[in-house]
Amino acid sequence: MSEDFLKVARAAREAAAELAPLPRAPKDRALRAVADALVVHSAEIVAANAEDVERAREQGISEAMIDRLRLDAARIEAIAEAVRQVADLPDPVGEVVRGGTLPNGLELRQLRVPLGVIGIIYEGRPNVTVDAAALCLKSGNAVLLRGSSSAFSSNTALVRIMQDALAATEVPSGAVQLVPGQTRESAKELMRARGLVDVLIPRGGASLINSVVEESTVPVIETGVGNCHVYVDADADVDLAVDILINAKAQRPSVCNAAETLLVHAAVADEFLPRALDSLAAHGVTVHGDDRIAHYGEVVPVTEGDFYAEYLSLDLAAAVVDSLEEAVTHIRTYGSGHTDAIVTRSQQAARRFVSLVDSAAVAVNASTRFTDGGQFGFGAEIGISTQKLHARGPMGLPELTSTKWVYTGEGHLRTS
Amino acid sequence: MSEDFLKVARAAREAAAELAPLPRAPKDRALRAVADALVVHSAEIVAANAEDVERAREQGISEAMIDRLRLDAARIEAIAEAVRQVADLPDPVGEVVRGGTLPNGLELRQLRVPLGVIGIIYEGRPNVTVDAAALCLKSGNAVLLRGSSSAFSSNTALVRIMQDALAATEVPSGAVQLVPGQTRESAKELMRARGLVDVLIPRGGASLINSVVEESTVPVIETGVGNCHVYVDADADVDLAVDILINAKAQRPSVCNAAETLLVHAAVADEFLPRALDSLAAHGVTVHGDDRIAHYGEVVPVTEGDFYAEYLSLDLAAAVVDSLEEAVTHIRTYGSGHTDAIVTRSQQAARRFVSLVDSAAVAVNASTRFTDGGQFGFGAEIGISTQKLHARGPMGLPELTSTKWVYTGEGHLRTS
Repeated sequence: MSEDFLKVARAAREAAAELAPLPRAPKDRALRAVADALVVHSAEIVAANAEDVERAREQGISEAMIDRLRLDAARIEAIAEAVRQVADLPDPVGEVVRGGTLPNGLELRQLRVPLGVIGIIYEGRPNVTVDAAALCLKSGNAVLLRGSSSAFSSNTALVRIMQDALAATEVPSGAVQLVPGQTRESAKELMRARGLVDVLIPRGGASLINSVVEESTVPVIETGVGNCHVYVDADADVDLAVDILINAKAQRPSVCNAAETLLVHAAVADEFLPRALDSLAAHGVTVHGDDRIAHYGEVVPVTEGDFYAEYLSLDLAAAVVDSLEEAVTHIRTYGSGHTDAIVTRSQQAARRFVSLVDSAAVAVNASTRFTDGGQFGFGAEIGISTQKLHARGPMGLPELTSTKWVYTGEGHLRTS
Repeated sequence: MSEDFLKVARAAREAAAELAPLPRAPKDRALRAVADALVVHSAEIVAANAEDVERAREQGISEAMIDRLRLDAARIEAIAEAVRQVADLPDPVGEVVRGGTLPNGLELRQLRVPLGVIGIIYEGRPNVTVDAAALCLKSGNAVLLRGSSSAFSSNTALVRIMQDALAATEVPSGAVQLVPGQTRESAKELMRARGLVDVLIPRGGASLINSVVEESTVPVIETGVGNCHVYVDADADVDLAVDILINAKAQRPSVCNAAETLLVHAAVADEFLPRALDSLAAHGVTVHGDDRIAHYGEVVPVTEGDFYAEYLSLDLAAAVVDSLEEAVTHIRTYGSGHTDAIVTRSQQAARRFVSLVDSAAVAVNASTRFTDGGQFGFGAEIGISTQKLHARGPMGLPELTSTKWVYTGEGHLRTS
């Protein structure tokens, strides 16, 4: 491990120990100071960001990607406002999760405590730098940030401004750190920093997540890969099914809770598919369908790869199935365990689908797009976990904590 | 991956899908059938166990270890009784962890669901084979067991009897599987079976846990390594401190929640240490002490290795510290994050110690020996987690589950 990396990781570890016992008020004051500093230093951030944008342009990056990268005064104000909103959220640390008095009189409590040092590896947008830092600080954690090299100048400026702002508060400025270099090598150092980093959260596409999961010796929370399904059951209300499908697919196709695959029960295909295919076409969606879908309209022939795909675009894989069980098997085989929806009027079918689909979220007669910390009322989210350990689904502040058992006696001894 | 391993792992995976949606009653019936079968086939188990004992004897294993390995009718009855107790515990699956109606009318619930397939790698005693299987089945999980090769014949018999018993119930018999070979290689296959196995729980000493943590691509829950501390504060009630120290060290020295290190505040050393050293000696404890401890009695000189040691024997590392903060730093440096105790009459010192010690459990004026699922009222435990993700401290049935979000609407679409 490089000396540069160790220095930063150790500084974060020390800051974490200092930050963990802090009560809510100084953390909120620090977050507000960060928000104010970002606005005050807006011009400086925009100037740094211009370097990233120029570099991206030289490299021939698409205008859509450059727009994701770009920061202006209004976007910085929005980033600062998000930090203020995190300050307004309840502090998860210290919450008594369980507690009581044991038969022997020992008082037992399970308290929420910070995880310690959280590593975040992310792509693209520089707003994540600030969002992630704010959520980690609020939950009492230090954070090691490893962003995209394409946002290097912006991230460097943002982190320096945050650190300077923290220096005047009770939160140690070492609690927010950019991993040196922001290179592939620095990401690997983060993955191997077991003992210095308590948890690693990769935010990005499937290839980033997979490489972290494969290589990391630090415990990982997998986030965000969404191959979401809409299953239209034999008993579906067809109007409702079309609306849900269009919303799930087309309302915002680039996000992880957008639908990528449509499964239609054969019994409702005649009634549902002609209307669904018309509406999908009207919304600019390309359907990759099997032969039974092709019977109802123009489609691109589907491949097995399409069923695995997280398109994040106006594409949709589609197949007809002969039973709810066949739909469930398809979802268990090809899905990513993010969100899968059933549209049905049958209470029994809904119960069965909910029980058999093994995903972070299951939607009944609702769009998959609701799997989101904001929609669930969490106030903010660090990502959507698609794994089973620790946290599953949208992760808010409590998901950035661990717990500690505390028991208090008056000389209690164990006798057996 | 060997064909033998894949066959068993896939069978467990299929059984897990079938077992997950089962309600409590058939699971409890299956557990009672398992308990009855173990008793009925007692002679068969004892005969298989005799092969293990004979092999151990040929290999010159110590009588103490052989006693841990040995099964007789009374021990098998106790194992069966533990299975019946698991059947009597509440089913964690289906519990609504959080839930409510969102402002838009969407009904949102977070439900406990099984993890899926749990791998257990363990040493020594064959009773773990049955205990672990019972806890996994009750929480709706299939289990892949990889026990010690020293218990190969016993484990083979126990698993075959459990599978035969399950075959007559609604729980699929494939839900309990012994990993083929029970070798080092089979343990590695379990560690690499990402996608087939959802979580791996190593139960055993530090070297087992470390090798699993290092090599596994399957998510791991670290358990059981306990380098527990008793810190006697300046303000301690000295009688109470001696009693707690002796209980923590000597009541059962071979377990992970026994104390391994004593830290004494300098201000109480004169009053506490002479009595503590006398009492430790009377209980047969060898003290590995620093110079300041040696001032009060006969000790073996302590090394840094002693401060890291999990003795699991009648040995105790000991040092005098000049402040609570120095004690905390010692614990953070050398401890294993299991359980650390403070003995003090000062409310302020207790609060500070609880806040600063970053361990799964912190005891105030109580023996470290209470960190235990049974003592905490969990009814049973699969182990004591010393990691921060997912579960920390004693793990009961709820800790063997994940969660699933379910939301139900009437055609709810997202508009922003």
